[in-house]
Amino acid sequence: MEDVKAKVKEIFPKVQELRRDFHSHPELGFEEVRTSKIVAEILESLGLKVQKGIAKTGVVGLLDTGKPGPTVALRADMDALPVRDAKKVAYASKVEGACHACGHDGHTAILLGAAMILSSMKDKFSGKVKFIFQPCEEQLPGGAKPMIEAGVLEDPKVDNIFGLHLWTNYPIGTVGLKSGPLMASPDSFEIEIIGKGGHGSAPHEAVDAIVVASQVVMALQTIVSRSVKPIEPAVVSVGMLKAGYNFNVIADVATISGTVRTYSEEVRNLIQTRIEEIVKGITAAYGADYRIKYTRGYPAVITDEKVTNYAKQIASEVVGGQNVIDAEPVMGGEDFAYYLQKVPGTFAFVGARNEEKGINKPHHHPEFDIDEEALAVGVELMVRYVMENERLKI
Amino acid sequence: MEDVKAKVKEIFPKVQELRRDFHSHPELGFEEVRTSKIVAEILESLGLKVQKGIAKTGVVGLLDTGKPGPTVALRADMDALPVRDAKKVAYASKVEGACHACGHDGHTAILLGAAMILSSMKDKFSGKVKFIFQPCEEQLPGGAKPMIEAGVLEDPKVDNIFGLHLWTNYPIGTVGLKSGPLMASPDSFEIEIIGKGGHGSAPHEAVDAIVVASQVVMALQTIVSRSVKPIEPAVVSVGMLKAGYNFNVIADVATISGTVRTYSEEVRNLIQTRIEEIVKGITAAYGADYRIKYTRGYPAVITDEKVTNYAKQIASEVVGGQNVIDAEPVMGGEDFAYYLQKVPGTFAFVGARNEEKGINKPHHHPEFDIDEEALAVGVELMVRYVMENERLKI
Amino acid sequence: MEDVKAKVKEIFPKVQELRRDFHSHPELGFEEVRTSKIVAEILESLGLKVQKGIAKTGVVGLLDTGKPGPTVALRADMDALPVRDAKKVAYASKVEGACHACGHDGHTAILLGAAMILSSMKDKFSGKVKFIFQPCEEQLPGGAKPMIEAGVLEDPKVDNIFGLHLWTNYPIGTVGLKSGPLMASPDSFEIEIIGKGGHGSAPHEAVDAIVVASQVVMALQTIVSRSVKPIEPAVVSVGMLKAGYNFNVIADVATISGTVRTYSEEVRNLIQTRIEEIVKGITAAYGADYRIKYTRGYPAVITDEKVTNYAKQIASEVVGGQNVIDAEPVMGGEDFAYYLQKVPGTFAFVGARNEEKGINKPHHHPEFDIDEEALAVGVELMVRYVMENERLKI
Amino acid sequence: MEDVKAKVKEIFPKVQELRRDFHSHPELGFEEVRTSKIVAEILESLGLKVQKGIAKTGVVGLLDTGKPGPTVALRADMDALPVRDAKKVAYASKVEGACHACGHDGHTAILLGAAMILSSMKDKFSGKVKFIFQPCEEQLPGGAKPMIEAGVLEDPKVDNIFGLHLWTNYPIGTVGLKSGPLMASPDSFEIEIIGKGGHGSAPHEAVDAIVVASQVVMALQTIVSRSVKPIEPAVVSVGMLKAGYNFNVIADVATISGTVRTYSEEVRNLIQTRIEEIVKGITAAYGADYRIKYTRGYPAVITDEKVTNYAKQIASEVVGGQNVIDAEPVMGGEDFAYYLQKVPGTFAFVGARNEEKGINKPHHHPEFDIDEEALAVGVELMVRYVMENERLKI
Repeated sequence: MEDVKAKVKEIFPKVQELRRDFHSHPELGFEEVRTSKIVAEILESLGLKVQKGIAKTGVVGLLDTGKPGPTVALRADMDALPVRDAKKVAYASKVEGACHACGHDGHTAILLGAAMILSSMKDKFSGKVKFIFQPCEEQLPGGAKPMIEAGVLEDPKVDNIFGLHLWTNYPIGTVGLKSGPLMASPDSFEIEIIGKGGHGSAPHEAVDAIVVASQVVMALQTIVSRSVKPIEPAVVSVGMLKAGYNFNVIADVATISGTVRTYSEEVRNLIQTRIEEIVKGITAAYGADYRIKYTRGYPAVITDEKVTNYAKQIASEVVGGQNVIDAEPVMGGEDFAYYLQKVPGTFAFVGARNEEKGINKPHHHPEFDIDEEALAVGVELMVRYVMENERLKI
Repeated sequence: MEDVKAKVKEIFPKVQELRRDFHSHPELGFEEVRTSKIVAEILESLGLKVQKGIAKTGVVGLLDTGKPGPTVALRADMDALPVRDAKKVAYASKVEGACHACGHDGHTAILLGAAMILSSMKDKFSGKVKFIFQPCEEQLPGGAKPMIEAGVLEDPKVDNIFGLHLWTNYPIGTVGLKSGPLMASPDSFEIEIIGKGGHGSAPHEAVDAIVVASQVVMALQTIVSRSVKPIEPAVVSVGMLKAGYNFNVIADVATISGTVRTYSEEVRNLIQTRIEEIVKGITAAYGADYRIKYTRGYPAVITDEKVTNYAKQIASEVVGGQNVIDAEPVMGGEDFAYYLQKVPGTFAFVGARNEEKGINKPHHHPEFDIDEEALAVGVELMVRYVMENERLKI
Repeated sequence: MEDVKAKVKEIFPKVQELRRDFHSHPELGFEEVRTSKIVAEILESLGLKVQKGIAKTGVVGLLDTGKPGPTVALRADMDALPVRDAKKVAYASKVEGACHACGHDGHTAILLGAAMILSSMKDKFSGKVKFIFQPCEEQLPGGAKPMIEAGVLEDPKVDNIFGLHLWTNYPIGTVGLKSGPLMASPDSFEIEIIGKGGHGSAPHEAVDAIVVASQVVMALQTIVSRSVKPIEPAVVSVGMLKAGYNFNVIADVATISGTVRTYSEEVRNLIQTRIEEIVKGITAAYGADYRIKYTRGYPAVITDEKVTNYAKQIASEVVGGQNVIDAEPVMGGEDFAYYLQKVPGTFAFVGARNEEKGINKPHHHPEFDIDEEALAVGVELMVRYVMENERLKI
Repeated sequence: MEDVKAKVKEIFPKVQELRRDFHSHPELGFEEVRTSKIVAEILESLGLKVQKGIAKTGVVGLLDTGKPGPTVALRADMDALPVRDAKKVAYASKVEGACHACGHDGHTAILLGAAMILSSMKDKFSGKVKFIFQPCEEQLPGGAKPMIEAGVLEDPKVDNIFGLHLWTNYPIGTVGLKSGPLMASPDSFEIEIIGKGGHGSAPHEAVDAIVVASQVVMALQTIVSRSVKPIEPAVVSVGMLKAGYNFNVIADVATISGTVRTYSEEVRNLIQTRIEEIVKGITAAYGADYRIKYTRGYPAVITDEKVTNYAKQIASEVVGGQNVIDAEPVMGGEDFAYYLQKVPGTFAFVGARNEEKGINKPHHHPEFDIDEEALAVGVELMVRYVMENERLKI
């Protein structure tokens, strides 16, 4: 597939230019008006059948080779973060308080690059390709769900789907893939323990919300240590505990908030139930009252084994076998999970760190940036996922 | 009252002899057959009206001066302990596994001595005296309750009651008194936490009774630290915790047992309720089950302020003001409490330790003994409580 | 002592006028310039030997009967609170944000009234009287300590001291007294648990300050439940617990603050030591660090038994025996404690509530007021404490 | 490989007969005298070079094809359990209190069957085969370690090793395999909390070992919930907690014992360290002392990815792809782990349950039995692992 590598090299400046343009004009979730307009215009200019305004700002382009074959979907997310851009670069954000600090600018540019190449090579493969540009991945409830509800995986029915994330945890030139659980389901909870205030010297007249909350925090530890099956990864973290007004006044209310990370619905349901049981039981033990708000985030990202093995082969051919990383599951979330609930697919972490260039900031950092060479890797992966799709049928 | 002191001196050898005789022939609670027979015979020989077989082995003698006046009751307890006697003395126990290791032999002898003196001096005071010798103070439910139910405080109605305990915590020649709470109500509880067993490597299939029990133990600490009014003395102690069969099998059941010490019914009720609420709530938090058995011991010994102040004056005159100790409340129990619930009275700790003579063992110790000089103090106190009862009316 | 009652009645309008004047012109601690000027002028007008500017604004007047006898000290505190006055009365505070919401205006007026009467009756008793008007009782470190350091209890050496507090917890016409522990020592503590922050999904890379703090809170409960002698009243209350920034970020720091109330130096020292041991041990168990700041408040108010019994007799004669309340210890503090560490004395709660007149607000409340009849009770108590001081010698 | 299947069928009665013979004559660990004698005789009769008495009762047979090629080791364990045999079958245990309740009789018979077939087909493959029959797998320290120390993996050096376990958790006709962590490292610990005893009514004079132990149990929960990386399976279970003698005596000592299950040395070391830190810190917080005994069990069974993939292919061909189970890791241990630390290899769970035949008892159950059809699967797997070893080289 040397011709693909050449094509990628050829269009690289265009992809880089697009990425920088998006970077300068970040748009928050469901407000990607400018970005989606550019996306749609390019897809149309390539002769694709384009649908616009899906889930507010989503765009889908359909490329039909005219030959019978599978329909492969490729997905990008377009939204930026409510973070100030602290980088000193020409392409820095021009929007106060908004920044592409998570690389979605690159994802969009990569997918446009893939569309350009695949359009120009459609005689070299069969079937159809759907280019899905979704709004809002960063914030609940996310753009993936309404896109799916609007039918983007149907008509024609998508057979496989591929997504990727530029990844500054991995060095440039590497690709990480993993079959099965890859990214966790990130839920959140807020617990209010309602005791009864009183003077610090008269505890017997009060219900001490701090004591109740402390025992709840200790009991929450037993969910992972006792209730969850040991081989199931799970996290229950309390991130905030706030109670009381003054050192000598017994607190009437304690507020506990935290996050739950799981890889299966079963464990997720179990944890939500256990949190409620624990809070209910322990507050009852002290004559306190409670309120719980449990908010479900995206489901876990569970990739298909067969598609992931295929993607590993492709990735080996793109970056060399020694540069394909057996990705460890990460506890962060991604609404790509919704597509995978419907269609077998996989999700790649495309290495974008470069210590030599000083590109090593974590995602969401105000100085986050990527080594743009990663754009080329991303485009080549996406293109080849489609062109070799024959290998997916066994 | 120099004549009383002289009388005490005169009869002391008899009192000592009686005490040693009882010491050699200890009898457990409700089995004081020999002791009560001797008691009854002496009382009868003094010309008192004697009732026998009350609450099995109790004896009451009534002395009537024939002159109008109050009825004062004096009480002794007669039972020994199921403890071996490890002393090397001529009057050591002749009964295997039974011993007067708590001084009740002395209490009985003292009260007989007082009866002798008061009988011989009945022209020197007015009213009536009831000499109450009760069975079984050492074990629940105690002899005081059935004695009272049998009417020993009625007909004639008792106006005041006095009791005492030989006390090796205090040195010989001292007397301790205190108005209000003096000895605690000693209750006991047993909690069974019923979880679900399982293999140590599969906690998710079990309900770990040890974790639940541990959290219950921590929560029980909050009863005294948070629920009981700070100025109310109270103890909740877990003395035993037993759970599990093997290091790698999750325990299905944990058994917790402990003691509760309080000085007021209100606090006692509060603690019993809090124990139940805590166990119920925390087991619910873990999906465990429970059983609680709460056993009430004697009530707290609460002495009457006026009677106690009177007794302090008497004691000052008997042992000298500097030897009257403001007793600290002790957490141990005494069924004298039941009499005090009905009739104003007080209870004295009569010092019986003598370091020089090596008499310093705590109560219930197999080598427990008393300095017998304390018998004289006891007799004099009892006699004078009665003879000066005019001073009680203000 | 009918003549005293008559004298009190006679000067009552003057005392009430003084109290209302002070009420309208409240001055915060160590700023009692106007108040102490009035106090000094009155004392001087009565012919007393007056010392001014002690501990900034303190005043002491000495009345010498010329006859040999004890020196009795009577103490008042003069400071107001930084509380707005919400009452609608003619004598309401004229100072924005300052109010005599704790009755010290009344204390000062009472003591001036007592000085007037005692000056006019100095032929009726012997010895000397010291009238101590101290600054700043409300805030650490208080005015009592520097007054004592300035020598107010010496030259002539004070034999006994009496103080009082107008008390809206008790109804008008009552006086509460208690020998021994009366008011607690109110200390405060602040604990900082220093863990290591991290992402909520990666607890293994963090040291979770909230978990450590929760276990510290549970362990602090065991100080009162296990370490303090059950008959010693003590409180350890955590009033505030603050930790964390966000539900999904593990907290690096938790701040715990609370109050400790005790009646003895031994228990106070024990609790301070236990807090430090617990925090040190538990943070070590988790690899966390800590900082503790323990601030000692006033010592406990421990009244003298003999002086208190004397005061009870006086109070019985002033308000009738049935209106003398056996005061329960209160967990609040009072720097009168410092005087009692040096000189035997007592402290009375003078009932000042009157439900019929709607005077029932707790101390420090913006609408706090007193039934001014209590001023008369206070004056009479103070006068008679001095005049009958012969009865104190037994 | 139809010829292998036929050979297996042919020798099956012999394998079954051997298994039943071993079953009737169970021998405990390091006492497998009769069993190893039979094993050695059969191996010798097949013309193999046989070593006896390794690690007491171990036997190794070497089959050399004479052609250059890899040396493949196949391993069986021979020991029975100290369990009574409660089955009613002709081949039930003839030894009181000993039973092959874990299937090692079958493992030994399978490996003998494999030796028979491979000996008869040695012209069909190259290299060498080592048949390792080890003593004592059931009890620490196990037979694998001394066998390895005696050199069974050397001379000739073993290239790959295969083991299996008859598995009544899986139905007959299935084979479970998994690359990476398969069976956990089972460690044990015993903690003694040394407080100070005392009377239940006087907690302030004691150091309550039950309170300290309870807080330790709660803190141990945080090892898995906070200290271990969420994607690393780990268990810390307390199975026993014993403390105290009497409900009203404060316990001086509490004994905690439990098990730790891990899949990596790193996590194992971390947990051991955390247990010690927690116990040290929390006992210090209460002024208690401690002793810890931590005993390491076998290491985790970590299979080689390449060898396992190879084994999956072989298993697919033996039982059909749909019957090859992606084994879930189990928390039980196996000393096969030691071989895998030295040589790449894998370990198969060979389904042996048959609900229709009522064969469904868990391992170590007194009525444990296997569906003997599993013996045929085991033999075929072992034979083909060797014969197709060419496929292992890529």
